[in-house]
Amino acid sequence: MASRDGYSWTKATGLRAGVPCLGAIQPSSNVGDDAHFDVIVIGAGYCGLTAARDASLAGLKVLLLEARDRIGGRSWSSDIDGYPYEMGGTWVYWGQATVWREIARYGMQDDLEISYDFGRGINRFLLSSATGTQSFSHEQEDALLESALGKLVNVDGSFGRDTIPFPHSGLLNPQARRLDFMSVADRLAEIKHHLTPNERLAAEAFVLLCSGATLETTSFYEFLHWWALSGYSYQGCINHLVKYKFRRGQSSFAIRFFEEALGSGNLSYAFNQPVASVEDAGHQVRVVTRGGHAFAAARVVSAVPLNVLTSVKFDPPLSPARWQAAKTGHGNQTVKVHAEIGDRDLRSFTGISYPHNGLIYGFGDGETPAGNTHVVAFGGQHNHFHPEDSIEHTISAFQGFAPMKVERIVFHNWSRDEFAKGAWFFPGPGLLANHLPAMRERQGNIFFASSDWALGWRSFIDGAIEEGGRAAAAVRADLLGRARI
Amino acid sequence: MASRDGYSWTKATGLRAGVPCLGAIQPSSNVGDDAHFDVIVIGAGYCGLTAARDASLAGLKVLLLEARDRIGGRSWSSDIDGYPYEMGGTWVYWGQATVWREIARYGMQDDLEISYDFGRGINRFLLSSATGTQSFSHEQEDALLESALGKLVNVDGSFGRDTIPFPHSGLLNPQARRLDFMSVADRLAEIKHHLTPNERLAAEAFVLLCSGATLETTSFYEFLHWWALSGYSYQGCINHLVKYKFRRGQSSFAIRFFEEALGSGNLSYAFNQPVASVEDAGHQVRVVTRGGHAFAAARVVSAVPLNVLTSVKFDPPLSPARWQAAKTGHGNQTVKVHAEIGDRDLRSFTGISYPHNGLIYGFGDGETPAGNTHVVAFGGQHNHFHPEDSIEHTISAFQGFAPMKVERIVFHNWSRDEFAKGAWFFPGPGLLANHLPAMRERQGNIFFASSDWALGWRSFIDGAIEEGGRAAAAVRADLLGRARI
Repeated sequence: MASRDGYSWTKATGLRAGVPCLGAIQPSSNVGDDAHFDVIVIGAGYCGLTAARDASLAGLKVLLLEARDRIGGRSWSSDIDGYPYEMGGTWVYWGQATVWREIARYGMQDDLEISYDFGRGINRFLLSSATGTQSFSHEQEDALLESALGKLVNVDGSFGRDTIPFPHSGLLNPQARRLDFMSVADRLAEIKHHLTPNERLAAEAFVLLCSGATLETTSFYEFLHWWALSGYSYQGCINHLVKYKFRRGQSSFAIRFFEEALGSGNLSYAFNQPVASVEDAGHQVRVVTRGGHAFAAARVVSAVPLNVLTSVKFDPPLSPARWQAAKTGHGNQTVKVHAEIGDRDLRSFTGISYPHNGLIYGFGDGETPAGNTHVVAFGGQHNHFHPEDSIEHTISAFQGFAPMKVERIVFHNWSRDEFAKGAWFFPGPGLLANHLPAMRERQGNIFFASSDWALGWRSFIDGAIEEGGRAAAAVRADLLGRARI
Repeated sequence: MASRDGYSWTKATGLRAGVPCLGAIQPSSNVGDDAHFDVIVIGAGYCGLTAARDASLAGLKVLLLEARDRIGGRSWSSDIDGYPYEMGGTWVYWGQATVWREIARYGMQDDLEISYDFGRGINRFLLSSATGTQSFSHEQEDALLESALGKLVNVDGSFGRDTIPFPHSGLLNPQARRLDFMSVADRLAEIKHHLTPNERLAAEAFVLLCSGATLETTSFYEFLHWWALSGYSYQGCINHLVKYKFRRGQSSFAIRFFEEALGSGNLSYAFNQPVASVEDAGHQVRVVTRGGHAFAAARVVSAVPLNVLTSVKFDPPLSPARWQAAKTGHGNQTVKVHAEIGDRDLRSFTGISYPHNGLIYGFGDGETPAGNTHVVAFGGQHNHFHPEDSIEHTISAFQGFAPMKVERIVFHNWSRDEFAKGAWFFPGPGLLANHLPAMRERQGNIFFASSDWALGWRSFIDGAIEEGGRAAAAVRADLLGRARI
């Protein structure tokens, strides 16, 4: 099956919209005559899938509405010749409690593989700047990043440990609040005399890899929050952020949630149904799709991302603080692109190409069924571009890391995706300090759930499952008188 | 309420058996006339509590039998003047998926505190050996341990990453198997020319802190497994192993599992009921206590620890491989002792006192209600002693770290505890390679569940919950036709 989402390009086929995906659902709806449910879940990303699964397993009658033709939201993988290119959220780790618990629950601990393979080929880190390319060993790469990021985060003499001792706390302490009003550009200005030129390049590129924004629109606190969750070290960041992924792709994981929910016998679903309005009348909530289909339920879980919230009409309207947060939005416009290349030696390359290049961070991410190298690369707001607008430009951005012959390109354009309006959540200065509690609040019969305002691994798959579980527990407490199963 | 378990000593009261504890349960039984259940869970540590909770929440009729007068098994805390001294398993971390998921589920993320406080006092690491005491900063301590342990684990040039890339795998790869047949003493012999004298002291003391055995009876693989789970770094070990604990003690956490299970209305329980025999007749299992009470159920979950398994009579008998594993047992005879001392400056001390001392590793662990310093210290098979046999000897073992005036001592003697026969699981060479799959196998209607043979954080609270969840899922699959809720 294929999704309308995503693009692929080869010289032979040219640019094609739509990509095969294990998460595309057929038939696209199983909704019968009944239009009344216990709970309607809007959005079938990991958050909505978890909420729908947990509620349906608890015996509640659930309707899952999804605007797309597939599950997974901002995490989904291609299935091109059986090979997964990850279009969005990719990596998981046993140190991420919520997602790991699900991996263990589905017995998928042995379905992971490591992105890197430094066992063959050039085995180098290539640091390209406007003035040329330097080549380092991966040990030198680690030492450079460790030193650069160490200086960036060391606001307290303890590399952030004293500032964020408990990263799952919902309330930012005064020092953390202060850092949330700082951008990473502000922080870099503080330490500019302590960074070598290479350290500065590496620190900026790594932060932009995380935020997909600009240095000015990246909250310094949020970067420190990722760092704290990762165990306050660069190696911890590597373990948590970019190392372990599903051999068969994220969609092979997401489908388990969907199938388990379906197996309960309590799940109705309809894909291709963008929601136009949500009207909470007190005794029930009415949800109307853009196509005019109306459904009603006792409760609604909105798993709509922050950047999309204002495109749904809520009545009563979103609370002023939530509205303000949604209008502000987050600034992550990550451009994530995959290339299949003939050069097998580049399997073991990693690279930064910054600040001149469109793609900032890239590395060998796998071996394709044809035996070629699969390279993944990331850009963002900085030098932003739309890969489908000029394949030549996209290829040349890959060649900004090293000479390579690009045979295939695969990607999803998150910036032009009306149901995402950007990639994973990464806030600008002040958004969390001003609005995090408001984003998490219930309004009447509507529970707002999203990885975008999770407490732990916010903006990760882990955070999406955290939030979906929170919403389902709250619905169960309301409707069944017990919060947990 | 108080437990019979544990000891406390002050000069005024002398040695007293029994310690106040939030996990002591009154009334000790709620079993009515009915003697037939869906499932009987033997053991109310975290594994049995999780199994009993999950099964009772799924609607099964559960009987929980416990030999002691309290919940928690090898993890429980005193409640002396409202202050928790942790008698066994203590520390938790957000990187431990299974236990963290429960902490989040009970909303206890904000109930944690950090053991260390380096903000005041002497703020030194004291390394005492037979030849005298050296004093270092904590930064020097970290550098010493990082270097020493780095050399110990670096069997593959990648600090164990290539040897144990996926630590949750149930099957040891050939290289891992080979290392499991090695003791840490064997590994130290390989690298003896690469360690400084201080590195050797530090590495040996740290390993013995983890294993509670001797260097000869500590599997090198299992130490590497802890290291891998911790993210392959010393700082990762500190985060995961000895840093974050419950402000009100482990028993404040364990009681949540018990109360939730009780709240289901499906839990019967009886404390002070050591089990004598378990007879699987095929159509049902009969469990008889030492006192002669007999109960029957469709299934049994045995959460009896490895070292105690042979003291229960199973019919049909334990499988030959399981019997062999149980007869072999594990060698962790940790001596964990707490001291309340008047010296406030020692709040920020850490220390190793090895190889001459009875207590090997110690550090400031808290501030008591009286404003005194609370020091925790660990010994084991190496220079083993029973703290209650000579309080003078115990006090002098504390003074092996630094001069200190000991005002109170609190501990549980795990070696003389017939329901534990040792502390947390730590295998000698070969036990895992030979017997791990057999320890995990079901036998007829009996599910064997214990942190001792968990796949992930084996021997930790995390592993206990992993195993309790696994057992409950299997029982549900059998009796309700669905493995999960």
